[in-house]
Amino acid sequence: MHVLIIGAAGMLGRKLTASLLREGLNGRAPDQLTLADVVAPPMPEGAPVETSLVTADLSAPGTAEQLVAGRPDVIFHLAAIVSGEAEADFEKGYRINVDGTRALFEAIRLTQPEGSYKPRVVFTSSLAVFGEPFPESIPDDFFLTPLTSYGAQKAIGELLLGDYSRRGFLDGIGIRLPTISIRPGKPNRAASGFFSSILREPLNGQEAVLPVSESVRHWFASPRAATGFIKRAGELDTSALGNRRSLTMPGLSATVGDQIEALRRVAGDKAVALIRRERDPVVARIIEGWPQRFETRRAEALGFKAETSFEDIIRIHIEDELSGQLPGA
Amino acid sequence: MHVLIIGAAGMLGRKLTASLLREGLNGRAPDQLTLADVVAPPMPEGAPVETSLVTADLSAPGTAEQLVAGRPDVIFHLAAIVSGEAEADFEKGYRINVDGTRALFEAIRLTQPEGSYKPRVVFTSSLAVFGEPFPESIPDDFFLTPLTSYGAQKAIGELLLGDYSRRGFLDGIGIRLPTISIRPGKPNRAASGFFSSILREPLNGQEAVLPVSESVRHWFASPRAATGFIKRAGELDTSALGNRRSLTMPGLSATVGDQIEALRRVAGDKAVALIRRERDPVVARIIEGWPQRFETRRAEALGFKAETSFEDIIRIHIEDELSGQLPGA
Repeated sequence: MHVLIIGAAGMLGRKLTASLLREGLNGRAPDQLTLADVVAPPMPEGAPVETSLVTADLSAPGTAEQLVAGRPDVIFHLAAIVSGEAEADFEKGYRINVDGTRALFEAIRLTQPEGSYKPRVVFTSSLAVFGEPFPESIPDDFFLTPLTSYGAQKAIGELLLGDYSRRGFLDGIGIRLPTISIRPGKPNRAASGFFSSILREPLNGQEAVLPVSESVRHWFASPRAATGFIKRAGELDTSALGNRRSLTMPGLSATVGDQIEALRRVAGDKAVALIRRERDPVVARIIEGWPQRFETRRAEALGFKAETSFEDIIRIHIEDELSGQLPGA
Repeated sequence: MHVLIIGAAGMLGRKLTASLLREGLNGRAPDQLTLADVVAPPMPEGAPVETSLVTADLSAPGTAEQLVAGRPDVIFHLAAIVSGEAEADFEKGYRINVDGTRALFEAIRLTQPEGSYKPRVVFTSSLAVFGEPFPESIPDDFFLTPLTSYGAQKAIGELLLGDYSRRGFLDGIGIRLPTISIRPGKPNRAASGFFSSILREPLNGQEAVLPVSESVRHWFASPRAATGFIKRAGELDTSALGNRRSLTMPGLSATVGDQIEALRRVAGDKAVALIRRERDPVVARIIEGWPQRFETRRAEALGFKAETSFEDIIRIHIEDELSGQLPGA
């Protein structure tokens, strides 16, 4: 089995690579692996002999053709310009997120002889395809109203994926990932960054800033759960998807207050005391329009599973990122 | 006021042109008119001195720039490869319906100096953005599941329109037209063609074939109502649209049996006797997946109005296409 990961150098790409090498897909180890990204992806430990590292821009002429020339059986397309950058640079967002995705699908469609190649394509989409006004809980058949260019680009990707799948050019599945918490690494300036940093920094004995009120509610999954969703999408029988090839992934609906109480239970009052409340009206206004809760019956019926408490999410972070123990504990 | 109609040679384009010249937009007559299509649009009666006829392919390099160079205040973008052709020719459908639409929006965005030009853009979308499984009545916030490439292309057009509007590059409104009945002209081979021909041909003393059962229900408006929708979309205050720039248009939910009974009341048993029942399983299967009824509260609140009976639709056809009387009457 030949697996291609586009966006392999990112956080999820690296976790997915490690998980594939550890567990395979449906228990089968990839014997060929192509890891592609705009920055050089690292050579993973335990990679098969036939592993290629490709540093290339998916939207550049020839890149998509090069990536599918080896006819990978499963393609994970995780590459994207993220929300903030796609909003700041309109042309770059459309070039990578729309034209890059379409170039990939076209390269698959045009592989000769026609109709001889139909890979599984896993496309990571986003909650950003949805926008207010929202019902209290957002059902699987809720309307697409992107409120960012990133969201519009992901929604267009979902429509292309659906049409190319319906026409039989590829076997696509789109998964809308929850906001990932606790995202490892350094604080970043994404509007959603505090959902991770108010836990990650205190667990590390450092101060973090909370820019919104504790009553703010949102939809979460751990990096481990998100990696599991992507892998599961590469494994499952897509015939159950019918005409709707994109699915909202399960998550945990939690308030910032829930996050803080979970931190208290796992790491104590001392950790919670490191959260400094400093309201940021810009961040608060952005977050206000975000979804709070989804019904994800379709994805659950297909075996996608998320965490059910923020304590579990914090424990997963400690296991996966902190070698199983709190610094200083 | 400078008005540009792209797709001006089509049935709706010609009716829209005539209506604009007769009534203006918000009572104001266009003093400049640009009529564009891939086939030469006819010079309309009563056109202003400054009328340009442009024969060009919107997706060809330079065409979109040429069309917006005169900075039309209102742009009606009706041009599209229709459903059957977009399904038969995948590349042509994407080239015209997606790339052509994006080229138009990009030409508007890139007009110099930046930000100085923000026309009203009316985009005709379609019920084909929706697909089963359907609730009994489809609400304004129902999910997009195109079951044809045409539907996917129109849904992508809606997303682009929404994003370009949100970013302030243009002032867009998308309107999803009902199936038009009674479409004037010759019978065509569209799967939906019989919804018009079973009325149009008998009104003209000719035989027509009904390929489905009388219980089939669908969503209709007359060509006059559809023209009115397009014109209204060019006139209304778009601030009421909020983030959702595309609207399902009102229509009449009717069965084939309702159509036939209306024909009987207007034109008698002799007309009805000209309908020959000849089941076509292919057409029946296509039509089975089509929507039957919509809730269109948003559009109604904005002043869009459709017919409320098929007798009205038939009378409109007699008035607009048959000079007010039945042939032979």
